[in-house]
Amino acid sequence: MADSAKRALTRRSLLVGIGAAGGAGAMYAAMGVLGLAPGPATDPLPRTGGASGPAPYVPPGRSDFTLRGGRPARVLVLGAGVAGLACAYELGKAGYDCVVLEARDRVGGRSMTLRGGDTVTELAGEHTGTARGAGGASPDGSSGPAGTATPAASAAALDRRLVRFGPGTYFNSGPARIAQWMVTLDYCRELGVPLEVFVNSNASAYVLTSGMTAPVRMRTARADAYGYISELLAKATDAGALDARLTPADQALLLDFLSDFGEIGPALTYTGGDRRGYGSDPGIKAGTALGRPPELAEVLSQGLGRMLTMDAGYEQAMPMFQPVGGMDAIVRALAGRVGAARIRTGTRATRITTGPGGVEVEIDGGAPLKADYCVAALPPHVMARIPANLGADVRSALATPVPMSAGKIGLEYGRRWWELEDRVYGGATETDLDIGHIWYPSHDYHTERGLVVGYYNTGPNAEAYDAMPHRERLRRALAYGARVHGARYRRDLLDAVSVAWRRQPHIEGAWVRWPSTSGLSLLQRPAGRVYFAGDWLTHLIAWQAGALESARRVVTDLHHRVLKEG
Amino acid sequence: MADSAKRALTRRSLLVGIGAAGGAGAMYAAMGVLGLAPGPATDPLPRTGGASGPAPYVPPGRSDFTLRGGRPARVLVLGAGVAGLACAYELGKAGYDCVVLEARDRVGGRSMTLRGGDTVTELAGEHTGTARGAGGASPDGSSGPAGTATPAASAAALDRRLVRFGPGTYFNSGPARIAQWMVTLDYCRELGVPLEVFVNSNASAYVLTSGMTAPVRMRTARADAYGYISELLAKATDAGALDARLTPADQALLLDFLSDFGEIGPALTYTGGDRRGYGSDPGIKAGTALGRPPELAEVLSQGLGRMLTMDAGYEQAMPMFQPVGGMDAIVRALAGRVGAARIRTGTRATRITTGPGGVEVEIDGGAPLKADYCVAALPPHVMARIPANLGADVRSALATPVPMSAGKIGLEYGRRWWELEDRVYGGATETDLDIGHIWYPSHDYHTERGLVVGYYNTGPNAEAYDAMPHRERLRRALAYGARVHGARYRRDLLDAVSVAWRRQPHIEGAWVRWPSTSGLSLLQRPAGRVYFAGDWLTHLIAWQAGALESARRVVTDLHHRVLKEG
Repeated sequence: MADSAKRALTRRSLLVGIGAAGGAGAMYAAMGVLGLAPGPATDPLPRTGGASGPAPYVPPGRSDFTLRGGRPARVLVLGAGVAGLACAYELGKAGYDCVVLEARDRVGGRSMTLRGGDTVTELAGEHTGTARGAGGASPDGSSGPAGTATPAASAAALDRRLVRFGPGTYFNSGPARIAQWMVTLDYCRELGVPLEVFVNSNASAYVLTSGMTAPVRMRTARADAYGYISELLAKATDAGALDARLTPADQALLLDFLSDFGEIGPALTYTGGDRRGYGSDPGIKAGTALGRPPELAEVLSQGLGRMLTMDAGYEQAMPMFQPVGGMDAIVRALAGRVGAARIRTGTRATRITTGPGGVEVEIDGGAPLKADYCVAALPPHVMARIPANLGADVRSALATPVPMSAGKIGLEYGRRWWELEDRVYGGATETDLDIGHIWYPSHDYHTERGLVVGYYNTGPNAEAYDAMPHRERLRRALAYGARVHGARYRRDLLDAVSVAWRRQPHIEGAWVRWPSTSGLSLLQRPAGRVYFAGDWLTHLIAWQAGALESARRVVTDLHHRVLKEG
Repeated sequence: MADSAKRALTRRSLLVGIGAAGGAGAMYAAMGVLGLAPGPATDPLPRTGGASGPAPYVPPGRSDFTLRGGRPARVLVLGAGVAGLACAYELGKAGYDCVVLEARDRVGGRSMTLRGGDTVTELAGEHTGTARGAGGASPDGSSGPAGTATPAASAAALDRRLVRFGPGTYFNSGPARIAQWMVTLDYCRELGVPLEVFVNSNASAYVLTSGMTAPVRMRTARADAYGYISELLAKATDAGALDARLTPADQALLLDFLSDFGEIGPALTYTGGDRRGYGSDPGIKAGTALGRPPELAEVLSQGLGRMLTMDAGYEQAMPMFQPVGGMDAIVRALAGRVGAARIRTGTRATRITTGPGGVEVEIDGGAPLKADYCVAALPPHVMARIPANLGADVRSALATPVPMSAGKIGLEYGRRWWELEDRVYGGATETDLDIGHIWYPSHDYHTERGLVVGYYNTGPNAEAYDAMPHRERLRRALAYGARVHGARYRRDLLDAVSVAWRRQPHIEGAWVRWPSTSGLSLLQRPAGRVYFAGDWLTHLIAWQAGALESARRVVTDLHHRVLKEG
């Protein structure tokens, strides 16, 4: 099988908006950058272990200078997102004199956890050009266009919104989940950030596609799909269709597998089973059947495929994890280790000049800053706008990645009706509506309030939501959510906050897409004394793990250079 | 399809020891008791809501007596397990004068969470008759019999073992997980018991069957099985085998589904995909392939079926939940509400006499106790041994359920190597070895110590372990665990505690099996003034939810009788 075809399928699952964040790395691969990342650096530092896989990361240490001479350099880090903070934290281990400049008034970048009292600021009117109409039909059947309000025309206009969540409520508006294998967990351990499970998939949550008349529980949809697949394959086997491929003994093994996998029994016919769930649960009496499953043709027309495989992805498989109390626990811990005195928020770089003896960064409203090195941990499309003497190739490379849209809305409810009435404890309802996913909170079960992520959408759907004012996003979220949950979705709502990442000042994108590989390897190397860091330089785009891996790479390279150059 | 055949398959999945606890309700169903539970009682109390499903539970209240006259009765509850404590708690809401008699020296029954300083007591030599040899070959290839030590012959002999776990370590030796739909969660909410996710299935954990030469990650086994199923069905479809069943349009929908479900691409051939996992994870560079998947025939011979569907069961689907700090938080909260003064541990009932005016319970070393009613919340096989004037039919019915074996071992390690080296955060490794499952802790991630459940076995495997001394159980657990994890499984081990439920004094079984339905409906009704309560009277055998549902039923019936009889 052609790998390109396989990747094209992966990309397709991305483009329909299922698990888009998880698929960004796959898209990166699909775009053809495989193999173009630079090879392993010749590494003068001792490594531990690592018989297979990449050499393990060894952080810079003060003793490196004791042994080799030289001294830690002064480094300006641009951007206090995950990559920038991680660079400053890691360099700080060896005594580097780091200063982090952050244009926003808060650290964390896209790892933005919102709580009561926070203000969400959006750029108004800037990114609405391509979005109008992409949202499709109005969720409640009204005939108006998707975005009826006209955002302010000025690119500089800002829309400020106060978050009014109650105590204890938080909204991970950016990254929200961590896979077991990701380096992010190592930072949680190192930084003492406690973890809990993020329920990325819940058999009791729902699926709703445009091919369905009503939502069904994920377990029911899955049982029906597996049931019919098993029936079809078992009957084909029974009819001799696999005789050329499988021995009789292997056919028997296959039938045995399918009997259980599809609950089809010896008759090899799917008529439903306990895995679908019950009409009324077993207890004093036996559970009652949920009813007959839909016919095969109906199941096929539901378009369930990618909703059922979302949690099979390497980046999405259960269990996943989140820091207790909000994802920003990680960036707050990093910032704490770096030290508040080294982080200057509200400070935008306006010019970068690299030279043989150092680097100079001009800033808004202050004297230029000088250092030995600079790490630009900014989104490439933002960095591309900052005047700098990095050369035309670098400028062109920075302008290559395309910022992508993604959006979420946090719906704070005063009553956890999804637990009380739906018996859904965390997890996600998957839809092919423009809201994408609905997430139920994976924490503080059984407490009074709770925050539901009413949409998490990407691609054209997110572009459409970018163009809407907050109240329209909310209106659509509630209208579509009510298709799943009925009237309760509108009751007990206390506050709602939406974030459109293309409209976040100084970030202006959820993540990036590389339309061509041109320039990637160039930016994985320093331009003079300026290094680049971020998830966008890795195969883990849209994941904090990408930012952290990139930071480790940059720190390693920079430290080696300092040790070599003395 | 015949339901009986479907049930037989369900039972088979139970008997091979996969998810046995979860399958106990299914076994109950398979045994033919469906439909024999008594119908809904005519209910004089007002109910709320409940358009579908059984009438919701309304606890007894003091106001019931205010409105109707009468007074709360005095009730003796035998057994301070989940059912008994729940009865006393619920009756207490209306002011009933309850006293709970518990033969053991601790409350909770099978909900036994062990911590450092606890003592585990086992009956020695009592239940070893059928077990010898059932464990099969020795895990490390030695030729000695499975149980080399001879347990003491005396049924009264006790083996006491001090638990030496460190602070914070606990071992849920009985129930350990709660499904979202179970009433157990309602009690957690009502009692203020905080919850966290129990990771019942982990894509990064392993599968090891006797058909495999080495363990593979669950995600890899699943991807390979789904891949080949998809390939076989897609190619059969492509070859026209489904032409009589499916329209061309439906065939196209099916192929679209299979392309993604099996990662087979347009060539319809499975050659592996990203869902298998990587040799080295994506990061700065793209992930490297894990290698080619095994051939179809090898996958079929691995016998993976039921290991891959374990978490599809209604009682086993993710997410599941556990109380923070140990499952006994529930029984401790119940006991706290009942009040220590009403619970007499170390008090064994020796005779029960029901009469027209009340019930008398004789106890070891004390004066007989009198009450208006008695709730016998004991295992039926234990209750059957207590002399009582309940009639021959009741005695015969009590002797019908067969106590079943199950066992676990808790392995406390000083280092969480499964997180650090395997990147496995909670969940289960599934095997067809006699250890059944290996569970990794779903809590306190990244702390120093952790407790692995080294085996959780049932049926004949558990009977074999029942017959072994603790050190032999440990030896097997370590030998088999090392097949999955290698030498690290023996390092850093601090303490190990095994529990064989057939050997637990006054409990003498993990749960029961009804070999025939004879007597069940009889015991769901009171015998004179004696009621019976426990999971064994429900379709949720082996689950705390069964005990709680049964308690609610008994409390409702008893309260109605008291209200009616004044």
